[in-house]
Amino acid sequence: MPEYKAPLRDMRFLIDNVFDFHGHYAALGATDASPDMVSAILEEGAKFCENVLAPLNRSGDEEGCHFDNGVVTTPKGFKQAFAQYVEGGWHGVAADPAFGGQGLPQSLGLVLSEMIGSSNTSWGMYPGLTHGAMSAIHAHGTDEQKATYLHKLTAGEWTGTMCLTEAHCGTDLGLIKTRAVPQADGSYAVTGSKIFISAGEHDMSANIIHLVLAKLPDAPAGTKGISLFIVPKFHADSGERNAVHCGSIEHKMGIKASATCVLNFDGAKGFLIGEANKGLNCMFTMMNHARLGTGMQGLCNGEASFQGAIKYAGERLQMRSLTGAKAPDKPADPIIVHADVRRMLLTMKAFNEGNRALTYFTAQLLDTAHLSRDAGQRQEAEDLLAFLTPICKAFMTETGLEVTNHGMQVFGGHGYIREWGMEQLARDARIAPIYEGTNGIQALDLLGRKVLGSQGKLLRGFTRIVHKFCAANAEHAQLKAHVEQLNQLNQQWGELTLKVGTAAMSNPDEVGAAAMDYLMYSGYIILAYLWLRMAIAAQAHDDPGFAQAKRATCDFYFKRLLPRTTMHRAAVEAGSECLMSLPAQAFAL
Amino acid sequence: MPEYKAPLRDMRFLIDNVFDFHGHYAALGATDASPDMVSAILEEGAKFCENVLAPLNRSGDEEGCHFDNGVVTTPKGFKQAFAQYVEGGWHGVAADPAFGGQGLPQSLGLVLSEMIGSSNTSWGMYPGLTHGAMSAIHAHGTDEQKATYLHKLTAGEWTGTMCLTEAHCGTDLGLIKTRAVPQADGSYAVTGSKIFISAGEHDMSANIIHLVLAKLPDAPAGTKGISLFIVPKFHADSGERNAVHCGSIEHKMGIKASATCVLNFDGAKGFLIGEANKGLNCMFTMMNHARLGTGMQGLCNGEASFQGAIKYAGERLQMRSLTGAKAPDKPADPIIVHADVRRMLLTMKAFNEGNRALTYFTAQLLDTAHLSRDAGQRQEAEDLLAFLTPICKAFMTETGLEVTNHGMQVFGGHGYIREWGMEQLARDARIAPIYEGTNGIQALDLLGRKVLGSQGKLLRGFTRIVHKFCAANAEHAQLKAHVEQLNQLNQQWGELTLKVGTAAMSNPDEVGAAAMDYLMYSGYIILAYLWLRMAIAAQAHDDPGFAQAKRATCDFYFKRLLPRTTMHRAAVEAGSECLMSLPAQAFAL
Repeated sequence: MPEYKAPLRDMRFLIDNVFDFHGHYAALGATDASPDMVSAILEEGAKFCENVLAPLNRSGDEEGCHFDNGVVTTPKGFKQAFAQYVEGGWHGVAADPAFGGQGLPQSLGLVLSEMIGSSNTSWGMYPGLTHGAMSAIHAHGTDEQKATYLHKLTAGEWTGTMCLTEAHCGTDLGLIKTRAVPQADGSYAVTGSKIFISAGEHDMSANIIHLVLAKLPDAPAGTKGISLFIVPKFHADSGERNAVHCGSIEHKMGIKASATCVLNFDGAKGFLIGEANKGLNCMFTMMNHARLGTGMQGLCNGEASFQGAIKYAGERLQMRSLTGAKAPDKPADPIIVHADVRRMLLTMKAFNEGNRALTYFTAQLLDTAHLSRDAGQRQEAEDLLAFLTPICKAFMTETGLEVTNHGMQVFGGHGYIREWGMEQLARDARIAPIYEGTNGIQALDLLGRKVLGSQGKLLRGFTRIVHKFCAANAEHAQLKAHVEQLNQLNQQWGELTLKVGTAAMSNPDEVGAAAMDYLMYSGYIILAYLWLRMAIAAQAHDDPGFAQAKRATCDFYFKRLLPRTTMHRAAVEAGSECLMSLPAQAFAL
Repeated sequence: MPEYKAPLRDMRFLIDNVFDFHGHYAALGATDASPDMVSAILEEGAKFCENVLAPLNRSGDEEGCHFDNGVVTTPKGFKQAFAQYVEGGWHGVAADPAFGGQGLPQSLGLVLSEMIGSSNTSWGMYPGLTHGAMSAIHAHGTDEQKATYLHKLTAGEWTGTMCLTEAHCGTDLGLIKTRAVPQADGSYAVTGSKIFISAGEHDMSANIIHLVLAKLPDAPAGTKGISLFIVPKFHADSGERNAVHCGSIEHKMGIKASATCVLNFDGAKGFLIGEANKGLNCMFTMMNHARLGTGMQGLCNGEASFQGAIKYAGERLQMRSLTGAKAPDKPADPIIVHADVRRMLLTMKAFNEGNRALTYFTAQLLDTAHLSRDAGQRQEAEDLLAFLTPICKAFMTETGLEVTNHGMQVFGGHGYIREWGMEQLARDARIAPIYEGTNGIQALDLLGRKVLGSQGKLLRGFTRIVHKFCAANAEHAQLKAHVEQLNQLNQQWGELTLKVGTAAMSNPDEVGAAAMDYLMYSGYIILAYLWLRMAIAAQAHDDPGFAQAKRATCDFYFKRLLPRTTMHRAAVEAGSECLMSLPAQAFAL
């Protein structure tokens, strides 16, 4: 396994130089998030992830989870690591102090999440899902429900899940069959079977609080008839075991140490949370956060893969440089001298650092949406979040998968061998484009709901930022050409959107046909904006080597990766006919 | 696991309508390859692969190979399947009749190989490696060596390997350390350790004939000092066990049922094959065939993945079409109604069928190079083969990996679960861009050695074909626009090559910097040519549905996939500076 070192220098660069987290926190009145506190989180979080979680990553993959008659055991060391994590107070870093949390901004929680996910993606699923359940209860629970569950969840004594998918429906939740029948005591008897429930059963906590989508007997059909229920494994008051049991765990391509459970609810006692038939809305309120978290998995696996690849490329001796020996005292040159190896390494670096910048940029919006006292500012942040979230989720996971594939390729044959750990990262990374809404669904959400659904308003909220940035830096001594390129793409983005929007008015399939390429196209432009911001901010960095690397990687990004927009634009402009004309039965040979 | 059905209709279309295999065989005097024989190979081969090999694919992946103190056992059923294969006479289909083969053209052997690889990639490695060893002995062995080994290898009583890689060198074979010391009896004592030896040890055959690269004591340094040796596991004459033993097998991401062995040679008795110090040349003579075979693995896994995805997309009900319900009697529409799902399916279909056409096109060249009585024709075929082989290997495996990833994505969460078999195909497909010369090495071979090394001659050999085709079809009623697009790209290809060649004269790194994008760029143009040939040939097909599908997929290819050339061209034109300027130590954070 590549040894994980938290990329603190790059994190600090974003926090201090690019996005001025300190000014941002001060403006939001998040005074607890002092520079010292930020520094402590970074350093202590890095230690925990490097020393406790990273060493369990390979072994967790090899061992996997165990299932025995409804009991799920996590791999060796996972439970102890969770205890240490809870003991260190990490679980409540960004949670509400009213329930025992530290109350630090969400952005700091995400900074920590990156380190967790990079060192051990599977392990990170357990606290990650719990945070999701906590937000749902926090946002929609009654005071009593909050009091009953949030203290223990925040303390990490209990963990949580989100139970949405059933065997016959994942994307299309309107089809769910799980039923909740009202009982005389005000509770509900929940019956049905859920699949793909991460952390649905395990040995890391004393209790598991399931948040379950189900339908009331008189519910309207489809997504408007879905309600959300709290179904604890053990009842909070009596400690009695509830009628929810794990039927099996899945055998998966990756994230093998994350228990993916079939959960059977046999008249389990549940409690309605939020309004009846508004369960999907409740779920959606935490989607921004969860989808950003999933997007980050692309960054996490990509970062771990890069750390392995860069080390290997500097040590592995193979062939001579095309321009003559670079290490004449050795039997061959380290492979980092080869242009094609550098192409892979720089692609990895450009996506990772760009995706990290995108994460931080978006995380600040999360803070503002939560903490700003200015309603206009909150709304603006919400709008940008709505726009960026599907891009974060899909673009970062697509490129994360590409990055982990390059990482394997740099290792040659050794990349395919489990022992080196590079292939695990590619397997782990492969789930992220699928779950938490497939990337195809994210693309539809972006283009259909967010961009066209707002008549372009949400897009303009972002292109305006880019436009201002380009205007302010139009005469930048070194980066002028790139600024101009971004400016043109930014305009083209609006024009392309108009074209799709016009076509979609007469044919709704145009949205589906364009969506995925539109999303990737958008992602590349956004990263170009962020790369320029980084290149400019790096000029003032005290390490000239760091500044040079940012500048060179920005240059690489503009010359080698940004041209992918041409291909995506062409695909968008190709329209839907070449997708829709073939009758379904004519697809097969 | 998706049920495998050999795509006989598409295969017959290529054989009968596009490439006229019958005329081709007749012209080469390959009279045994009669239409009836071709038909029998297709039908009986399909039955064997569908009924014997395909059912062992999932179980082989789950069980993997076993290693116990030097003894390797293949998964349940593998040995029996090999016995059936040998018994059916399949192993010698394209082998020399002088040693018991059927003497059919190589192209027919490749048609069979596709079915084998699609139904069970891991299993296919055992006969595949044996064929490699057979060609080496056939091309370079003495009459005595041929007599000693080829009968048994052709009969499948024995199997073979190719032992190149060592722990510290894969690409850079000049670094190998295995030594061969001449003995008084004319044999050599071979000592060293080889890794990544596919089929290096197993229980499927009575004997294993290793072809081993090693250095003589007085050998010149580097690749000019490598010799090739035959090292049998059991000696052919005495039956005595030789001093070559399997030290362990690798635990890999995929092709788990293929035994990847560490082989330790402890003064094993070996026999020089071919000239001393010319071992690498001997290996290279079979590279065209082996690399085409590896390229085909992209097609094989892609085809299997498509078969799974197309079935699932027609059955899985999820959401309604954006243009209104298409299956109003069902709770939701089958997902094939969604444009984004079709985008993935058509991408899979376009690459698979395009890659199959590329395989058949190249396979005919193999036949001509082997069988033509016209030296000029043989040379022309050799030149085209030299040009196309690295493209087949790298383009088909890159796109094959993309195809298997789409296949998983079509399945949503189920794609990530082992039970469905889709993720196995993605794991199995991942090795092909790595082994048999990484795709980066293929790209250097194409651009550096083949194209620029011939001053563009090998490229012009192909662009001339495309040019003639475009001229002949410039006024095609339906496809005129696509023909014109291809014609322009074909010209641009030459211009781009000239640009890179000029840049490379002053800076050799320009070759490495451009190589991978140049290769992919070339592959997309070649597939465009083949797609047009298919679309035109399909017009005469007796099934109008088939013709429509070819036409629509061609259209999709030109509109949605061919624009990727713009991105690759831009990357090629970006030059080497943005790759080479950053000092190695500045890459890490």
